[in-house]
Amino acid sequence: MATTMPRADDAATSAALAALVKELGQENVLVSEEELREYRDPYDYKGSDEYTGSAVVTPRLVEDVQSIVRVANEFRVPLWTFSTGRNFAYGGAAPRVRGSIQVSFREMNRVLEVDDELAYAVVEPGVRFFDLYDHLRAGGYRLWPSIPDLGWGSIVGNTLDSGRGYTPYGDHPTTQCGLEVVLANGELLRTGMGGMSASKSWHLFRESYGPNHSGLFFQSNLGIVTKMGVWLMRAPEVYVSGWATWRDEGASAAVVDTLRELMFEGVIRNYPLVGYGVPTENGRDPSNGGWMVRFALYGREKLVQALHEIVSEALLAIPGVELGRREYRGDDERSAATVHDDKVQGGVPGLELIEWFKELHGEDAGHLDLSSIGPLSGADVVETIRLRREMSERHGVPYTAGIVLLPRTALHICALIFDTNNEEQTRTAYDNYGKMVVELAQAGYPVYRTNIQHMDLVAEQFDFNDHAQRRLNEKLKDLLDPNGILSPGKQGIWPQGMRPARP
Amino acid sequence: MATTMPRADDAATSAALAALVKELGQENVLVSEEELREYRDPYDYKGSDEYTGSAVVTPRLVEDVQSIVRVANEFRVPLWTFSTGRNFAYGGAAPRVRGSIQVSFREMNRVLEVDDELAYAVVEPGVRFFDLYDHLRAGGYRLWPSIPDLGWGSIVGNTLDSGRGYTPYGDHPTTQCGLEVVLANGELLRTGMGGMSASKSWHLFRESYGPNHSGLFFQSNLGIVTKMGVWLMRAPEVYVSGWATWRDEGASAAVVDTLRELMFEGVIRNYPLVGYGVPTENGRDPSNGGWMVRFALYGREKLVQALHEIVSEALLAIPGVELGRREYRGDDERSAATVHDDKVQGGVPGLELIEWFKELHGEDAGHLDLSSIGPLSGADVVETIRLRREMSERHGVPYTAGIVLLPRTALHICALIFDTNNEEQTRTAYDNYGKMVVELAQAGYPVYRTNIQHMDLVAEQFDFNDHAQRRLNEKLKDLLDPNGILSPGKQGIWPQGMRPARP
Repeated sequence: MATTMPRADDAATSAALAALVKELGQENVLVSEEELREYRDPYDYKGSDEYTGSAVVTPRLVEDVQSIVRVANEFRVPLWTFSTGRNFAYGGAAPRVRGSIQVSFREMNRVLEVDDELAYAVVEPGVRFFDLYDHLRAGGYRLWPSIPDLGWGSIVGNTLDSGRGYTPYGDHPTTQCGLEVVLANGELLRTGMGGMSASKSWHLFRESYGPNHSGLFFQSNLGIVTKMGVWLMRAPEVYVSGWATWRDEGASAAVVDTLRELMFEGVIRNYPLVGYGVPTENGRDPSNGGWMVRFALYGREKLVQALHEIVSEALLAIPGVELGRREYRGDDERSAATVHDDKVQGGVPGLELIEWFKELHGEDAGHLDLSSIGPLSGADVVETIRLRREMSERHGVPYTAGIVLLPRTALHICALIFDTNNEEQTRTAYDNYGKMVVELAQAGYPVYRTNIQHMDLVAEQFDFNDHAQRRLNEKLKDLLDPNGILSPGKQGIWPQGMRPARP
Repeated sequence: MATTMPRADDAATSAALAALVKELGQENVLVSEEELREYRDPYDYKGSDEYTGSAVVTPRLVEDVQSIVRVANEFRVPLWTFSTGRNFAYGGAAPRVRGSIQVSFREMNRVLEVDDELAYAVVEPGVRFFDLYDHLRAGGYRLWPSIPDLGWGSIVGNTLDSGRGYTPYGDHPTTQCGLEVVLANGELLRTGMGGMSASKSWHLFRESYGPNHSGLFFQSNLGIVTKMGVWLMRAPEVYVSGWATWRDEGASAAVVDTLRELMFEGVIRNYPLVGYGVPTENGRDPSNGGWMVRFALYGREKLVQALHEIVSEALLAIPGVELGRREYRGDDERSAATVHDDKVQGGVPGLELIEWFKELHGEDAGHLDLSSIGPLSGADVVETIRLRREMSERHGVPYTAGIVLLPRTALHICALIFDTNNEEQTRTAYDNYGKMVVELAQAGYPVYRTNIQHMDLVAEQFDFNDHAQRRLNEKLKDLLDPNGILSPGKQGIWPQGMRPARP
């Protein structure tokens, strides 16, 4: 399940924590076992304490973050930064190095700015999708956020992990604009046009004069992001949540190809999701192998009707496909949506998926999400389904799938589900996940994001030119964080002195 | 006009050139004064030889590029890389360090791949917009390239300079996907999903596992890009080139706000251009202060008519606005377009703008493009126009403007025109440009791209936290290119030992 991981030095950590209490106040340094329990990996085996920190510190200001990195450098102790720690399937708040000081942004949770005219917000890392949604509703803004499946996560955290949502603004790495970053040496950097103090365009223009640094802080341990601009969607007059269902897997290729072309045309502007064996309310019966895809249309009424006719004609030309739709007019109607698919495609945050998960699998169930990237071609998606199902059966894992359709890729997500009270079942799931990562890589399907236990293994699959990307990341790590204080091991990037032996 | 610039060491350069002749063959090492003339800054004063190289080398393979950096490291000589060197207003092929060895990609000009289904191409840096367009037409692909104003430039070069086009794929930094880069130490890096040898998604998915490196190679001297994926647009059934004209500058704010909302809605998906005092054929009279904006609509006939009704209704509600349109059905009709605005919005490359420029100003006229970024708000655009006109008049420069409407910013471009045979006139234009860069920065409008003579000055304006971006760029430069061989001074990034004294 994991190689033996480094541990933080106890004496250095104690000294660092004493200094942090002085800097931040006792109330921002949590150390009791009870308080820390919440910051463990929620989907690790319950009896394990492998991925646990020694304390959680909660900065409230950018200056607090700078104090934290100063102390960490002084005492040479590892930090592990997270936004809200709700990304359960990928490890939650838990660190890779046992005994790390966990840096929680839950208390840095202000929406710093909303510009209704130019349709963007500036948020701190602790702002949850719920918070921004509430803020926009309360302020009467004509703006929708893009949200992922669960509304409790951090906007910054999700975006920096290359997360996705399901409105036309669902490509979160592309709809962010303008980061503020505390580097490991405590210096403050603003990316892009934010590099000019007087600039009016920090959160409006994505490029830099000279190299663009923002990518360096995605899935990264090269800096700590303390502010982010996020582009928002103008609220449409009408919003249609549509779906198609079919039973014959043979139709899946045609459905994918049809949707890709509608996306290329600009008819469908959001990110559709193909589902198999996962619960939704749209007439699909997960028990009998039925398939569904959801999509959405937005705009003026007349236009949306014309768009819907085009989509319907195209999808109904595929034998066996049936269609459904629900329509929302005005922002109040959309905000009252209760169906999960309608909420996520309408930028309304919720917790339905985790509630269903608990209902179906029990309070102590965990899951790992195996998320790989392949071409958005019907033939390739069907081949991936075949491969994924064969792999799953071979490893004794039930095959379910959520396939997000991005502009040119299909993001194929399967959940491996287990009982976290059952050590053997849990370890078997982690083992199977690891085997499937390697099998997928051999077939050309990279996993683009992973849990803390598999970060090294996934990095290992990026093998081009003897792992040129990893070597570059290690060089950057040594340059920008010579003491290795920032989230050691994140995405398989270890600082000097902690790098695992490699063949 | 420029501070005294460093010069390459003559003896080292001679030795390096001898080695390069052995590596690449004499035919790929140009040294005669006549051959090199074409690689000077075309818009510098004709009598100046300040920005001249000592030789032009032309790699034909990635391995040649690796040989070139190996030799440059061995003899510690500066290279200056360009793709085709056609970016005249920003310096063409000319180096910042006199006597640099210029690396020309004109002979590495293959379209390596076109995928019609997934709508992308992979190109070498010497591929011009003309070349890709011809390749797509000849192959019968259902794909349009996005092109900038002049078709003779390199796709890679334009993109890496954060250039723009005018179709819905005109945001070139965002429609690129997957770079191959030769680093200064000769190592080959593939960005994003290209980091996995077997990956099927190198040119399909923009993000990385771990930090995203691609931004590091934009407006950059941290590596040499040797391949790039570029996303292409599915050819639409119908394409409408539309425009609006008005005489009262007071209407400009309403036009901008209206277009921004139509862009937010997804009704207008391309990047409109507002023009003042620059020639087009669409009923605008540049001699009397008239304004125009062009935009385009794409898709199925029925849909395009509905979109056009929405746009027309919105624009005609503004007093004094008149509309025009031309429609193209099918790819043959669009490819036969002759009007510049219709060509650029239809992805058909041309040279109209430079031909008009020469007609209006003479064969030896030069220009500098002052390109700044501001918010896409009608009020702000009008304020910028006022500021730009006042500045231009104060510096004795006629005010003309092309304002590209990007999703949340207005990219305001004014040309400073001069006779390159007239030293005083040329130097005055460069001086005025520099003064206006500073005035614009003070008003909050960053210049995002500039000519070789003003690169340090523009970098100087990015002053946040004592030039944190520049300090980071210098650290990265020292890390990745310790001998300072790659394009020293590009975008104001100098290697150790060549950094200008700063206050």
